[in-house]
Amino acid sequence: MSKKDSIKIIPLGGLNEIGKNMTVIEYKDDILVVDCGMTFPEDEMLGIDIVIPDITYLLKNKDKVRGIVLTHGHEDHIGALPYVLKKINVPIYGTKLTLGLVENKLKEHKMLGSVKTNIISPKMTIALGVFSVEFIKASHSIPDAVSLCIGTPLGKIVHTGDFKIDYTPIDGDMMDLHRFGELGREGVLALFADSTNVERPGYTMSEKTVGETFDNIFRNVNNNRIIVATFASNVHRVQQIINAAYNFKRKVAISGRSMVNVFNVATDLGYLNVPKGMIIDINDLNSYPDNEIVVITTGSQGEPMSALSRMAAAEHRKMEIHPGDVVILSATPIPGNEKTVSKVINLLFDKGADVIYEALADVHVSGHACQEELKLIHSLVKPKYFIPVHGEFRHLRHHAALAESLGMSKDNIFVSNNGNIIEINEEYGKIAGTTNSGNILVDGLGVGDVGNIVLRDRRHLSEDGLMVVVVTISKADGSIMAGPDIISRGFVYVRESEDLIDEARNEVKEALQKCEENNIKEWSTLKSAIRDTLKDHLYRKTKRRPMILPIIMEV
Amino acid sequence: MSKKDSIKIIPLGGLNEIGKNMTVIEYKDDILVVDCGMTFPEDEMLGIDIVIPDITYLLKNKDKVRGIVLTHGHEDHIGALPYVLKKINVPIYGTKLTLGLVENKLKEHKMLGSVKTNIISPKMTIALGVFSVEFIKASHSIPDAVSLCIGTPLGKIVHTGDFKIDYTPIDGDMMDLHRFGELGREGVLALFADSTNVERPGYTMSEKTVGETFDNIFRNVNNNRIIVATFASNVHRVQQIINAAYNFKRKVAISGRSMVNVFNVATDLGYLNVPKGMIIDINDLNSYPDNEIVVITTGSQGEPMSALSRMAAAEHRKMEIHPGDVVILSATPIPGNEKTVSKVINLLFDKGADVIYEALADVHVSGHACQEELKLIHSLVKPKYFIPVHGEFRHLRHHAALAESLGMSKDNIFVSNNGNIIEINEEYGKIAGTTNSGNILVDGLGVGDVGNIVLRDRRHLSEDGLMVVVVTISKADGSIMAGPDIISRGFVYVRESEDLIDEARNEVKEALQKCEENNIKEWSTLKSAIRDTLKDHLYRKTKRRPMILPIIMEV
Repeated sequence: MSKKDSIKIIPLGGLNEIGKNMTVIEYKDDILVVDCGMTFPEDEMLGIDIVIPDITYLLKNKDKVRGIVLTHGHEDHIGALPYVLKKINVPIYGTKLTLGLVENKLKEHKMLGSVKTNIISPKMTIALGVFSVEFIKASHSIPDAVSLCIGTPLGKIVHTGDFKIDYTPIDGDMMDLHRFGELGREGVLALFADSTNVERPGYTMSEKTVGETFDNIFRNVNNNRIIVATFASNVHRVQQIINAAYNFKRKVAISGRSMVNVFNVATDLGYLNVPKGMIIDINDLNSYPDNEIVVITTGSQGEPMSALSRMAAAEHRKMEIHPGDVVILSATPIPGNEKTVSKVINLLFDKGADVIYEALADVHVSGHACQEELKLIHSLVKPKYFIPVHGEFRHLRHHAALAESLGMSKDNIFVSNNGNIIEINEEYGKIAGTTNSGNILVDGLGVGDVGNIVLRDRRHLSEDGLMVVVVTISKADGSIMAGPDIISRGFVYVRESEDLIDEARNEVKEALQKCEENNIKEWSTLKSAIRDTLKDHLYRKTKRRPMILPIIMEV
Repeated sequence: MSKKDSIKIIPLGGLNEIGKNMTVIEYKDDILVVDCGMTFPEDEMLGIDIVIPDITYLLKNKDKVRGIVLTHGHEDHIGALPYVLKKINVPIYGTKLTLGLVENKLKEHKMLGSVKTNIISPKMTIALGVFSVEFIKASHSIPDAVSLCIGTPLGKIVHTGDFKIDYTPIDGDMMDLHRFGELGREGVLALFADSTNVERPGYTMSEKTVGETFDNIFRNVNNNRIIVATFASNVHRVQQIINAAYNFKRKVAISGRSMVNVFNVATDLGYLNVPKGMIIDINDLNSYPDNEIVVITTGSQGEPMSALSRMAAAEHRKMEIHPGDVVILSATPIPGNEKTVSKVINLLFDKGADVIYEALADVHVSGHACQEELKLIHSLVKPKYFIPVHGEFRHLRHHAALAESLGMSKDNIFVSNNGNIIEINEEYGKIAGTTNSGNILVDGLGVGDVGNIVLRDRRHLSEDGLMVVVVTISKADGSIMAGPDIISRGFVYVRESEDLIDEARNEVKEALQKCEENNIKEWSTLKSAIRDTLKDHLYRKTKRRPMILPIIMEV
């Protein structure tokens, strides 16, 4: 038997971050991509809409790419597809619901006809170039999630995808632990596993427990409406809200664009079981008594434009909060959203609503495995190599430690970075190099055109605003023909700072006169003189540093 | 006995927010102020340094103000003092440590000689106009905190200040529950109580438990340095770190400006007990073996400029993180700081440090009372009226519900807003009106000069940057003499967008030509034409909306 080549595994996103998951698996002339996610911008990425992975490596190896395999339909696993597929149109593979959500997304980008989508289901195996990909049923906070077993010439790679172990799943179909066990017995080359909740001891509770909480809450609300906010994609959660509504003879209205979208897709594809006549239009809320109404809405993260935020701020066109409304936030704030969520809670209380959230009742469970669940998967799969994924550095480190505590050798665990090239062959596994990776910023129609310079300027402008100084000078002798005029924005309230602006104008005049006296005529020198003079003057007067833009016109 | 006037109680800050606590208590010609705090800006307050209360009401009643009484030395209780005292210089009253911290602050503002400070201590009573103020020992996450019993012609007002009940406090001096009990038996007109932790069931753990955790961690670190980050003002926490260092024969270095400041004040005033020779200079760290070092540092909130953040980012001038360093974050992220804290944790792990934080060990306890402690205080004090303070709306609401559950009548509980005038007399208590209140923004030297218009502009600039269009026209005939010139910042990377800018210039030219053809000469119309043309063009091309600043010069 001839010596085999190495497999290369290159995470392009999802490491040292929770977001934009994307992993490249390469063997000779074949590349397989797992997931294609986006992430939301960090606070310092001012004005940015979304962030996607850098796919330079894929573009360089375009001809090798056989397809993109999706583990589930969350944005951090499918959100970059429209942008990536525009550059490199390869077939995509996912379960029915996952592709339903992808198609919604492609429709928005007017790409629906031009992409080849392939529905797969658990227990299926497909061939992609040299690879085989077997799909394994997993549990997560969205239905139809799968783990992957990728067959390679060197052995099997198991990728958990995002998962938790739920012994009483809402759809009755448990994560296929048997298959993980079989694979472990047969031998697994490498395991990639979800690290999100590795810092949490014990087990994640079953989704079913939330349904019990709903029943308990619904039972005790007698005369009022119930409004439940959750993630649109958490179809099982939505099912449980519908079940509770049914149990207590309430109708259900759906609110929020993404909630309506996912509800429709999930209903069409048979992932939601909705008794006939139960759904009412949100425009018809007033035709029903309060105690017959449940509203399921977006906005559980306090997103400023979401339906719930608009209700809380009395800016929703179709419904307003009544005193006595019971609002359930069936979600945990994603790190970074704590304050916006709290703001919505406060506004709702202020409107007289009774608000129930995680601090007060068990209205949410995570979709990710805690320590004991992770240990189970590790123990079943018993891989030769382990690569913790889907986590910040702290999570990856802790996940590595967990694997070590189960007996793995440190040398066989790769705590990696995006862009690392993990090379595995018959002799060794190691991080063998790096390639391009990072954040591609999407702002409006621009993909990647906003970089550090633009962001630095936005940050500067956001902190102290700007002052524009315009002066028209004579081409003939350099004398001032008009100006200096001063326009400022975001610096001080101009009407109450006339003195400051007048002084600034005089400072500029003096600086220009000095230049004239010294026969200085280069624009760049004049501009520097204006900038330096003003900078010092304004800092002395205000301890602020607005951006100063000197403009010289010549006539 | 003649009919008495009403007492007015006006919270100017601290309601519907956790921050800038300040309460006015007024009877006829006398005003007493409790606390004078600042708060940190919300995300949308771009470029703002700190936020202080609106004191218009006090300025209008300047002659009545007898003094400011401070409950403890946290920024949200003393941080606005320099700004307020500049406008209205009245005596201030506080315990020794509180005033020590205030003096630090006044020194920075060069106000030290000009403010009258009066040291008080628990069990003392002072007279302020018609009021008496008795100070009562309380426990909190800073030593020397007091509750107040304010004697008024209509009865006693008890203000808990920030508190928890700690049966084993570090200084051995427990909250004076006896006095609360006595006051309750004698009769209390109104209770103001801390609502921060009202959503948490049970009790807050004793500060002492953190010391036990420190001992356990220190015991198991054999060869490495230990770095502990905590709030500078948590002197008891610092004491416990010093104790643990002493127990395990380590020296202590102090890092971070505010840590050094508070450490010095607390040591000078006798609030810290530091064995001789234990403190070493941070410059001398390399003279000691790693296993003999503890560094106490600021930065537990991941503040970007703090000592710990600089260590994590390898930007600290005096020390760097070694692989193996054990870093303890002895704090919980304040809501809104979760991401910055997480970033520091990740960077530290990345440098090879082992990081221990609240998710992993009991390295922090809160300084605020949970439900059972609140119930104890309510039950002891048995007030006629209750005003929940120090909390967002959700906390105030829940605190009101807690009081009701203990038997208080809803009518005697005032869930209020900043600026509400709560009037209490012999016949009734009610919210009788409102006065000015709100956020005064401090930006550099400017206090209150940044308002909504400036912030709106900063937000606009931060999202899509700006485009300045300058054109010089002839005074004689309105023809274009120079330009249009286009300068943009924070919009696109100009070097890669020359076409876009050229097109924009042409659009402006055409728009101006059209104006000329139609004999339009008013500047405002010309500017609108430029703005509208560009706005549409740029949105069509980029789906962004930069601020557009048209400038017309006339020669």
